[in-house]
Amino acid sequence: MRIDIITVAPELLESPFNHSIIQRAKDKGLAEIHLHNLRDYGLGNYRQIDDYQFGGGAGMVLMIEPIANCIEDLLKERDYDEIIYMTPDAQTLNQSISNTLSLKENILILTGHYKGVDQRIRDKYVTLEISIGDYVLTGGELAAAVVCDSIVRLIPGVLGDETSALTDSFQDNLLSPPVYTRPADYKGMKVPDVLLSGNFPKIEEWRSEKAYERTQKIRPDLLDE
Amino acid sequence: MRIDIITVAPELLESPFNHSIIQRAKDKGLAEIHLHNLRDYGLGNYRQIDDYQFGGGAGMVLMIEPIANCIEDLLKERDYDEIIYMTPDAQTLNQSISNTLSLKENILILTGHYKGVDQRIRDKYVTLEISIGDYVLTGGELAAAVVCDSIVRLIPGVLGDETSALTDSFQDNLLSPPVYTRPADYKGMKVPDVLLSGNFPKIEEWRSEKAYERTQKIRPDLLDE
Repeated sequence: MRIDIITVAPELLESPFNHSIIQRAKDKGLAEIHLHNLRDYGLGNYRQIDDYQFGGGAGMVLMIEPIANCIEDLLKERDYDEIIYMTPDAQTLNQSISNTLSLKENILILTGHYKGVDQRIRDKYVTLEISIGDYVLTGGELAAAVVCDSIVRLIPGVLGDETSALTDSFQDNLLSPPVYTRPADYKGMKVPDVLLSGNFPKIEEWRSEKAYERTQKIRPDLLDE
Repeated sequence: MRIDIITVAPELLESPFNHSIIQRAKDKGLAEIHLHNLRDYGLGNYRQIDDYQFGGGAGMVLMIEPIANCIEDLLKERDYDEIIYMTPDAQTLNQSISNTLSLKENILILTGHYKGVDQRIRDKYVTLEISIGDYVLTGGELAAAVVCDSIVRLIPGVLGDETSALTDSFQDNLLSPPVYTRPADYKGMKVPDVLLSGNFPKIEEWRSEKAYERTQKIRPDLLDE
């Protein structure tokens, strides 16, 4: 998988992309990520990329022309399965979207900043708009990093243990059951007996129960889906 | 505001915390963020921090003892308004939670990794569990960065324009209306006339309409809240 990201703050993404799972995926040749600094497409001597919004109001808007030029340059090199715009006013990312995206070959991600991008960019180029949640961030960079992490880890061979991703929360619309590790007794706080029993059918039953209980208590909405 | 973060991958958080809004908040003396490497509290010569889960199954679990020791050390220095654990099996972050957290003095964030932390840590220390959305990430680091960005930008004085954050999506349960900037005509793609009219009451009316339309189309659930 190849992911291109257009951003006004590539330096923000350096450490998330040079460590952890994404670096591992790159090392294994399973994913490549290319950052494109929108400033390189800025207009005039000052490399302008944003301007005041028409109609007045606080906050700057990313101009259409630098972004369009950058996207057009990239489109000369390859087709993209999706051109994604990260923005809070969009459908919310969920595990099902991540699963789908993890099967793509080429993805282009445009990250918003300030008040967002000129609407005409969204109308003309963007095929998928994604929010990572109902809260506002300073820019789309962290959101893009979140999307990349959530999809790259699903590419077969990236995670050490193939079964690990499949037992995560949300893959079955249930939250994970509680987990415990050694010591079995820590200052009087004990691990549930069943987990020490070696009775695996019973352990599976306990885990299913706990997963269901936790989901019902914290996120009953997941059970309705 | 002071934020302490316990993590197994502090290097992942370097660039998000040394750039952008968080750096600006630090420069202005409005926020400080301290990273604590869980590995420093690891057990034995190998500085062990994780172990297999009781009851079997894929994925490692962060052990109780290193985390407990780290938290106890921090609690000797100060009280925390919240000890937050970042985990997918929790309530989902929203703008209202971010608003509330932005008013706190001291926050401690524990980031999960692998299959998560030993449940006993959650039972004993954690006062607030937050997920940033219904998808699984490799670790809680990016999630912690998202929480920090969303709350630090709300601290008065951090954003350049005070009014900017208040007109963001979600502050009024509506998505933002479309925004446009120059040029008014880009290769035949024109900005809506009303935004060029100078008629500000009319512009406000148009924006409210568009915000409502967009919310109804993409996120009708927000209108029910």
